[in-house]
Amino acid sequence: MNGHSAVLRIVCPDKPGLVALFSGFVSSHQGNILHADQHLDRRHGLFLTRLEWALEGFSIPQADIHTQFQPIAQSVGAVWNLDFSNQEKRVAVFVSKTDHCLRDLIWKVHNGELPCQIALVVSNHEQCRAFVEREKIRFVCIPVHAENRRTQEHVQLALVQEERVNLIVLARYMQILSPEFVALAPPTVNIHHSFLPAFAGAQAYEQAYQRGVKLIGATAHYVSDQLDGGPIIAQNTATVSHRDELEDFKRKGRSIERDVLTHATRAHLLHRVLVYKNRTVVFD
Amino acid sequence: MNGHSAVLRIVCPDKPGLVALFSGFVSSHQGNILHADQHLDRRHGLFLTRLEWALEGFSIPQADIHTQFQPIAQSVGAVWNLDFSNQEKRVAVFVSKTDHCLRDLIWKVHNGELPCQIALVVSNHEQCRAFVEREKIRFVCIPVHAENRRTQEHVQLALVQEERVNLIVLARYMQILSPEFVALAPPTVNIHHSFLPAFAGAQAYEQAYQRGVKLIGATAHYVSDQLDGGPIIAQNTATVSHRDELEDFKRKGRSIERDVLTHATRAHLLHRVLVYKNRTVVFD
Amino acid sequence: MNGHSAVLRIVCPDKPGLVALFSGFVSSHQGNILHADQHLDRRHGLFLTRLEWALEGFSIPQADIHTQFQPIAQSVGAVWNLDFSNQEKRVAVFVSKTDHCLRDLIWKVHNGELPCQIALVVSNHEQCRAFVEREKIRFVCIPVHAENRRTQEHVQLALVQEERVNLIVLARYMQILSPEFVALAPPTVNIHHSFLPAFAGAQAYEQAYQRGVKLIGATAHYVSDQLDGGPIIAQNTATVSHRDELEDFKRKGRSIERDVLTHATRAHLLHRVLVYKNRTVVFD
Amino acid sequence: MNGHSAVLRIVCPDKPGLVALFSGFVSSHQGNILHADQHLDRRHGLFLTRLEWALEGFSIPQADIHTQFQPIAQSVGAVWNLDFSNQEKRVAVFVSKTDHCLRDLIWKVHNGELPCQIALVVSNHEQCRAFVEREKIRFVCIPVHAENRRTQEHVQLALVQEERVNLIVLARYMQILSPEFVALAPPTVNIHHSFLPAFAGAQAYEQAYQRGVKLIGATAHYVSDQLDGGPIIAQNTATVSHRDELEDFKRKGRSIERDVLTHATRAHLLHRVLVYKNRTVVFD
Repeated sequence: MNGHSAVLRIVCPDKPGLVALFSGFVSSHQGNILHADQHLDRRHGLFLTRLEWALEGFSIPQADIHTQFQPIAQSVGAVWNLDFSNQEKRVAVFVSKTDHCLRDLIWKVHNGELPCQIALVVSNHEQCRAFVEREKIRFVCIPVHAENRRTQEHVQLALVQEERVNLIVLARYMQILSPEFVALAPPTVNIHHSFLPAFAGAQAYEQAYQRGVKLIGATAHYVSDQLDGGPIIAQNTATVSHRDELEDFKRKGRSIERDVLTHATRAHLLHRVLVYKNRTVVFD
Repeated sequence: MNGHSAVLRIVCPDKPGLVALFSGFVSSHQGNILHADQHLDRRHGLFLTRLEWALEGFSIPQADIHTQFQPIAQSVGAVWNLDFSNQEKRVAVFVSKTDHCLRDLIWKVHNGELPCQIALVVSNHEQCRAFVEREKIRFVCIPVHAENRRTQEHVQLALVQEERVNLIVLARYMQILSPEFVALAPPTVNIHHSFLPAFAGAQAYEQAYQRGVKLIGATAHYVSDQLDGGPIIAQNTATVSHRDELEDFKRKGRSIERDVLTHATRAHLLHRVLVYKNRTVVFD
Repeated sequence: MNGHSAVLRIVCPDKPGLVALFSGFVSSHQGNILHADQHLDRRHGLFLTRLEWALEGFSIPQADIHTQFQPIAQSVGAVWNLDFSNQEKRVAVFVSKTDHCLRDLIWKVHNGELPCQIALVVSNHEQCRAFVEREKIRFVCIPVHAENRRTQEHVQLALVQEERVNLIVLARYMQILSPEFVALAPPTVNIHHSFLPAFAGAQAYEQAYQRGVKLIGATAHYVSDQLDGGPIIAQNTATVSHRDELEDFKRKGRSIERDVLTHATRAHLLHRVLVYKNRTVVFD
Repeated sequence: MNGHSAVLRIVCPDKPGLVALFSGFVSSHQGNILHADQHLDRRHGLFLTRLEWALEGFSIPQADIHTQFQPIAQSVGAVWNLDFSNQEKRVAVFVSKTDHCLRDLIWKVHNGELPCQIALVVSNHEQCRAFVEREKIRFVCIPVHAENRRTQEHVQLALVQEERVNLIVLARYMQILSPEFVALAPPTVNIHHSFLPAFAGAQAYEQAYQRGVKLIGATAHYVSDQLDGGPIIAQNTATVSHRDELEDFKRKGRSIERDVLTHATRAHLLHRVLVYKNRTVVFD
């Protein structure tokens, strides 16, 4: 596990020979495959694969792999990504007042579970400043109202750019991002406090309580221009009963929210998620 | 467990002394309480309780308990039910083509898990006739189309009445019941093949597949005049991934559907469910 | 929820009239019952109950309740506890190097989920000192080896007494406590990193990995003089597959360990756990 | 899904180029890969893979594939299996008195979920004969006692051979099979009614009840000469509480037993399980 690796994620129309074609590219240059997985989406006739191999011993220099793989990808009409485990991701976490997801992200980065650096925490409130700054992480408070949303989003985007952020994680950030923001921002993972598509929008636990459900849920998804409608990465549920008041829904919910969010963030950071047609393949 | 018991279910405005009042009624007549549970719905200021005690040794004859408890209930403005384990419930199961829930109900009745008699199976198709009749259970096929729905519901209701049915179980019955039917029918439990309120209506697995969820679910609820909107009794979920095709959603779903439906039916038959304000308290 | 309450937990031989007897004690002194639950252990012929009522309006002064209930308890041969929500519990957390359970306990106390004060953290290592002291919590490092165990346990017990500790929580404390310590210490909750009784003792994840299980687990239990053999309060499991290395077992395990431990600690602090015959009743 | 397929399962020492080598064998003969998965067991330095491809269009005749792949397998020191979806498996189910697992197996075969034919049901009791024979399945009762075990196992093995059985499923068969039987029998899947390794042997629910667990479990595993010690294929758990009597443990247990057993049997029948070093890789 000590060495570094390259990861190819590829989506292309299915046809015979693709597994051999892609794995042949790696092995013909002395690459040792550490992980290979593939999926055939029969409904859409698509082949999806993830290949990870050790950079050590690979005969193509890291900087040239992209160029050398390009013609192969082109020959099969592939949409593809190439990533390297030695290029650390820089993450911006957006948060409002509740801190459980943010704390868990920070702790799991420290603990080596999330391979990234938290470059920045953005919040529309001051509550989380103290403990974030104690962790030596930059904290910027950007209050947002209906009237200043557009301007503030520009400020947010400028910060994201300045900090060279590759991933935004919305860790219970209770503001809606405009389609313009989403279009310009790096990939953005959100945690929603329900088993989507049930209870989209605000006050999901209150909605769930009102409906008298026997399960609550949490959903991590990529943010798209559809509110709570982007590709789902991970979901989980917890049982509730009539004994659980709204506060208990929230308490039990916090536990699954943080786990689902860090699970999805980890899958993203390890380049295990492929997105296509508003859905995900998660190779884990 | 060999002796028979009485079960009181009570809903009334909360006030001090209710636990002592109701348990005092039982113990002052030499009743041995086998199970007592209560719940306080703070939001609505309601007290809900279930009391079960042995009929053996109880000093009020079974036939007089109702009359003797009446004034106590009235004094606190209670809505209440009195049931006896020696009055076997008669159940009508409605089914369409898929048989997994029906088979599980029949098997669990045979096995002593569901204290009832299946008096009747009603279907809009012929598929299940053979194995139902082999079990010596009456099977009636009543084809339903948009045009004949009203007439056929009258036929169904007449059968339900003729067979003195206390409970209808919709075991994947793919027809919508009219509000008129619901108003006239005995309590009706339905299994819906999603974690409601997500994916109400038809083709729930196809909807779930399209949305790219990572969990599928099943929900047992009482039927009301709102489609898939009645009080929820039980829910469960199962994990799915990109590897699961629509057929796999259905296969995994069958497993949780039958368990959730028989769990809810059992809770109903043991008089463990209290319904109020479109929600349930399940004392189990 | 703002007012304070009294909680009675009672275990006694079953006989008719107990529910009415105990609830009658509360209501005859104008007590408003907030929560009442009971259980009948048929195998052992035991009745177990928990009664919680508002102190406000109760006609017996808080200081006299114990004395006034005594004769009632005596009349039915009860073993019983009386607790009050306005008597805050003082907790000592014992920890070794891994901090996830300790962090979660501290965070949940801050967040109002665990009604107690962490009076003290005891560790056989220095790793956790920095963040514990930053939270203004007393941290004492007491290194333990086979030779000094007995002496160090005396130091630990003195600290526990000095800090008037009501509950010890072993939050991944990797030392075995002697039967002498257990006999003298307040109630002690431990988190074990397996679904006991499987994989008791050290290296539970390595044992689980070796056995090729498809589920890992965590168990919170009261410590007794039997290693990992005390009464179980809570358990949970998570799925693993061949893809999970030992490190993944540990990573997934941390998530369920902290949840199971704080769940059990919360149940204890809310006086919801009754212990008898090496088993628990948890009224939640 | 209508066409038939070949499945290769391979275990060999890891080295670079294996993915390309094996997938190249398929694609160089015009095989269209339907499913490919691999796993690297770093601890043992082993590469494990499963390749499934369509027989239609494959340029090697089905009967010759084995011979043609042999030298490739040999060159890398592989242990391997080649199976075909058009060679239906013949299954013998062994059962004692409780029928839930057997019923579920039969129903799932009828329903197309388990690609096999149940050639034979063997039981040491007569209870299941009626419904098995009604399904037109051969039923043989072979009473077993300590004294006649050896002789009766010979009778069982003769039957298994006569019926050309490829897989034995122990569907709650409450007799221990001798190491001699196991050595001579085809692969045998057992369902054990606990989360192994906890509560091996007889009376697992009683053991679990005695220990006061909060979870019960079920484990499907291949039978080896170690009692309940063979490679685990699948496990699941269900929550229990103090309210659950031994009968409830059994009732809840039946539900997970049948699901875990049919899940494991399905994985075996689809050639998704690789066994090595007393553990399994399940590619699903």
